[in-house]
Amino acid sequence: MNEKIMNGRELSSLILNDLKEKVNKLDRNLTLVVISVGDNPASKVYVKQKEKKALEIGYSFTNLHYDEISEEELISEIKSLNADPNVVGMIVQLPLPSYLDKNKILNTISPLKDVDGLTNTNFLRLIKKEECLEPCTPKGVITLLDYYKVPYTKLKVVIVGRSELVGLPLFHMLLNRNATVTLCHSKTMNLKSYTKEADLLIVAVGKPNLITKDMIKEGAILVDVGINRIDNKLCGDIEASCLLKASLMTPVPGGVGPMTVVSLMENVYRAYELGKDNYGKNTESN
Amino acid sequence: MNEKIMNGRELSSLILNDLKEKVNKLDRNLTLVVISVGDNPASKVYVKQKEKKALEIGYSFTNLHYDEISEEELISEIKSLNADPNVVGMIVQLPLPSYLDKNKILNTISPLKDVDGLTNTNFLRLIKKEECLEPCTPKGVITLLDYYKVPYTKLKVVIVGRSELVGLPLFHMLLNRNATVTLCHSKTMNLKSYTKEADLLIVAVGKPNLITKDMIKEGAILVDVGINRIDNKLCGDIEASCLLKASLMTPVPGGVGPMTVVSLMENVYRAYELGKDNYGKNTESN
Repeated sequence: MNEKIMNGRELSSLILNDLKEKVNKLDRNLTLVVISVGDNPASKVYVKQKEKKALEIGYSFTNLHYDEISEEELISEIKSLNADPNVVGMIVQLPLPSYLDKNKILNTISPLKDVDGLTNTNFLRLIKKEECLEPCTPKGVITLLDYYKVPYTKLKVVIVGRSELVGLPLFHMLLNRNATVTLCHSKTMNLKSYTKEADLLIVAVGKPNLITKDMIKEGAILVDVGINRIDNKLCGDIEASCLLKASLMTPVPGGVGPMTVVSLMENVYRAYELGKDNYGKNTESN
Repeated sequence: MNEKIMNGRELSSLILNDLKEKVNKLDRNLTLVVISVGDNPASKVYVKQKEKKALEIGYSFTNLHYDEISEEELISEIKSLNADPNVVGMIVQLPLPSYLDKNKILNTISPLKDVDGLTNTNFLRLIKKEECLEPCTPKGVITLLDYYKVPYTKLKVVIVGRSELVGLPLFHMLLNRNATVTLCHSKTMNLKSYTKEADLLIVAVGKPNLITKDMIKEGAILVDVGINRIDNKLCGDIEASCLLKASLMTPVPGGVGPMTVVSLMENVYRAYELGKDNYGKNTESN
């Protein structure tokens, strides 16, 4: 079975080692700042994860945590980080408390430091195939597919899920790489009639075991972006037994998850490179 | 055969009459400005067409024509039109001479006056399902489909063509209306394997007779956005004989073409409505 697994844990540690070497050679510190607000317990875990990876690579890491902060203060904080040449990348950890305007806050981040790839500017650049920082989960999926030499331009590709975080940007990233993609979603009628035809099926909806063995094609390549918890066990959006029918599949955990974190770390380095060419210009948000 | 035709000429004149009535009731003039540069002969024809329709409805119409103009001057002209409360909508007629930066110029237009729906701001709003001015050709296609009660959420929809003007925005407009869409393009391998499965096939590539009868499904609904000239006769991207196999089809000419012009006229009225609520704020470009 092992030769059917797209091992995100393994690939992410290869990439991490590469990054470590590159960062070691630099004569300056690269600082990643994570801003977090409130006391979401899951967020704390994610921030810790990012800190661990960042330090492992040799980045400097700062977590600016606020139990509470006004929108105005938060925006002015982001603006001063935009202007700080020591900060190469920054993230606003989501979810934000509901009293804060998420879109307004995210779009205050300079597109050149937006290592989560969530600003409007970066989304538009991504669609238009312009230089940009790509959102981490879709970037991780593409890196994994490329590593396993999945020939997506030759395959019928179906994405299930149209979120702004994963499905939509992934659609455009694959389209820009000349794949032909069908985008399914919660309102798709007869989902099975689409998934059954897919040579490459990517599922990102967050519904445990939505895709069952009868819904996939023999020999399909399956990418499972979902991470769901049932009875304290993790499962994906694709039933694990689909592996029997698939030719390649990402496991949950250990598939797309680790790729997301390491893509963020790649974006920090990319932001450093973009910043070198652009310091002083274009660091304002749109 | 006639009951199989989606008659854009007929529908567009119904819409035009509606607009005329609404505009007649207003106590102010609505001015549409078309800026044109250079001496493209096709552009002259298109500008004349727009003028004719605009005047028929009762809009005021101004064509600002320049044989030559510097980028700086053009941008400052657009900015002053942005600020002019008498101008409700403006268009920069494409193509522009190559010495002018198309994207920079288009994105100087205030999103609230961008009746061609071509600014980045309107494109982003369209994707995010926010209030916006939609690009005219995709808007015309949707209006036509709605008028003929095509139940696109229940159909396998295939678009051929991924241009920023038609294919891409139409993909998002149909997605936002809960259709499930496959987006094909010039690099799609085995195009027929996709078109053959389509219940609703929309083709916007500009290749005469690209889609032949053997490539479509019995009973398919066909929308032909292409307008090509061969031996001085117009033809679409879909071979005319496909009508025999289709259940509904747009003719060329007289299908999507007239819907594009009338959609522009609808956008002028929409811009007037948006402007009423927004004068004084947000009229700056992004």
